Amino acid sequence: MSTTFTMIGGEGPNSYREHSKYQRALLEAAKEKINEAISTKLDINFTSNIVNIADFGCSTGPNTFAAVQTIVDAVEHKYPVDTEFQVFFNDTSDNDFNTLFKTLPPGRKYFATGVSGSFFGRVLPRNSFHVGVCSYSLHYLSKVPKEIKDRDSPVWNKDIHCTGFSKDAAKLYLDQYKIDMESFLSSRAQELVSGGLLLLLGSCLPNGVQISETVNGMMMDFIGSSLNEIAKQGLIDQEKLDAFKLHVYLAHADDLKRIIKDNGSFTIEVFEKISHAKGEHPLDPEYLTVSFKSTIGGVVTSQFGQEAMEKTYELVKEKTQEMLPQLAKAKPGMQYLIVLRKN
Amino acid sequence: MSTTFTMIGGEGPNSYREHSKYQRALLEAAKEKINEAISTKLDINFTSNIVNIADFGCSTGPNTFAAVQTIVDAVEHKYPVDTEFQVFFNDTSDNDFNTLFKTLPPGRKYFATGVSGSFFGRVLPRNSFHVGVCSYSLHYLSKVPKEIKDRDSPVWNKDIHCTGFSKDAAKLYLDQYKIDMESFLSSRAQELVSGGLLLLLGSCLPNGVQISETVNGMMMDFIGSSLNEIAKQGLIDQEKLDAFKLHVYLAHADDLKRIIKDNGSFTIEVFEKISHAKGEHPLDPEYLTVSFKSTIGGVVTSQFGQEAMEKTYELVKEKTQEMLPQLAKAKPGMQYLIVLRKN
Repeated sequence: MSTTFTMIGGEGPNSYREHSKYQRALLEAAKEKINEAISTKLDINFTSNIVNIADFGCSTGPNTFAAVQTIVDAVEHKYPVDTEFQVFFNDTSDNDFNTLFKTLPPGRKYFATGVSGSFFGRVLPRNSFHVGVCSYSLHYLSKVPKEIKDRDSPVWNKDIHCTGFSKDAAKLYLDQYKIDMESFLSSRAQELVSGGLLLLLGSCLPNGVQISETVNGMMMDFIGSSLNEIAKQGLIDQEKLDAFKLHVYLAHADDLKRIIKDNGSFTIEVFEKISHAKGEHPLDPEYLTVSFKSTIGGVVTSQFGQEAMEKTYELVKEKTQEMLPQLAKAKPGMQYLIVLRKN
Repeated sequence: MSTTFTMIGGEGPNSYREHSKYQRALLEAAKEKINEAISTKLDINFTSNIVNIADFGCSTGPNTFAAVQTIVDAVEHKYPVDTEFQVFFNDTSDNDFNTLFKTLPPGRKYFATGVSGSFFGRVLPRNSFHVGVCSYSLHYLSKVPKEIKDRDSPVWNKDIHCTGFSKDAAKLYLDQYKIDMESFLSSRAQELVSGGLLLLLGSCLPNGVQISETVNGMMMDFIGSSLNEIAKQGLIDQEKLDAFKLHVYLAHADDLKRIIKDNGSFTIEVFEKISHAKGEHPLDPEYLTVSFKSTIGGVVTSQFGQEAMEKTYELVKEKTQEMLPQLAKAKPGMQYLIVLRKN
């Protein structure tokens, strides 16, 4: 869960970009299906001895290395020929590539390269990679529509994320998500070789479930209301808070499927819900608060300062404790594995 | 001149890794010959629409971008087809790739990637790049032979670099240089496509000239003797200074040519001395001292501390002033352009 609402780069153990054990466990749960997809659906004509793998939104590792290793192993199993692997680790230019390079697994069987740039545009040459993965990165919007941030606009969103209370705001979020996904898919369609695969792992909402009904949504609401309380105490600027929105959008599964189909560049080979043994989040206020602090804390600090962030999370912890019965009744979210083959 | 004795990474305007205007001027002087070599000697069979360029020892720019742009322009002029360029910027993992990525030229016509790893080993897949360049990086040794650093060894080198006073020490330096060049050339030979070109730009010594007879050698001797003076004053540890050697070796032109021929993977298409309008170093103590401070200052600081470094360069400036007549009679070094075609 802890990276579901990650947005920008950061360093250190409290980084809200840090990948969680939860995410790693989901990769483990998806492994068999990834192996099967590569074994049965990958269909590439080698023009050289090189297999290129790309990881879009790689962050700094180590989870990105596990995802890449899974793919390398599966491709090597399918084509046990004299190939060499080259892996392109992509993220925005504010990602810490120095750390990525310094922490590359020592025994890796591939040549590693870093590619800086937004994956909403082209970052690799045409027909240059064979298998790509994007893991827990597609719920970040490239931007929040400005009307939603504008206190004087009729579609101003009072919450810090898309809770869905306002239908107009929800539509604007979805529109932006469609634009971003379309940019992502069109760019990858150009870069991927024909017959190559693009794997998407991430979070979405089951059809019919509102984000405010999930633990993630409730926790974000606690953060928003806590920020509001400290704004009322004068600790942070109310106007600034009114414009503060997380760059995050969790689409409904059917919307996501529709966007991919409308794009038209890919065949959906797999679109599945992934579950793992650990199940949903433990209902522990400490765990939940620390998780959200590690993911959203950084952006709260950068906007409102360290003290406001600490104060916010004290309040969040209290609310989490109080609202434990409601959290227990929350509806589950959905973790997906999508496998796309380029037409 | 200022990067001739660069050794490890650093940041900021005083970085001894910073590329100099002098080096940029040499690239300008070599441009026509590079264009000609690419026009007449590059002979690649395209298996895809992608031309891969590689820069070995790229540092953080901006000079690396100028060298790469020169190559991209020349290849595009020769093959004005529907190609896309991908550039692999390689340097060791202590290079600041974050800065490299953030300062990539905005209007560039290529996809940029970073590759961390020592160019004395493999950093790219087999047959994966078409034109490579290594600019002012091949005078760095992978290490200084340990006998040379050992005060109790009969071949201990009293100077901080290879002045050539001791024939045994000079041989050990040359042996290490041969090992390193052989590693570099063998790795590149595997990575370069058949008919592809490898361009080497850098400093060497004209045949028959000793480094101690050049401005570079004299300046390094001033640094060494200044460090010795402050060691005698007790400001730095004499034992540590006795083991302090720059990881730098300037080969003689004929030795360099012989090593390339013995390697056997490449045909030497061009092996030329490059001169530019600015001529040799200006005989200005301020300029010379600042130049050497910006290149060697960092490693002196990391070994002996900021204060010792500042003190050293005060003494260097005095010596440079005193020795101006000798510096005026120094023999010129040699800047080379070497173009190798893979056999």
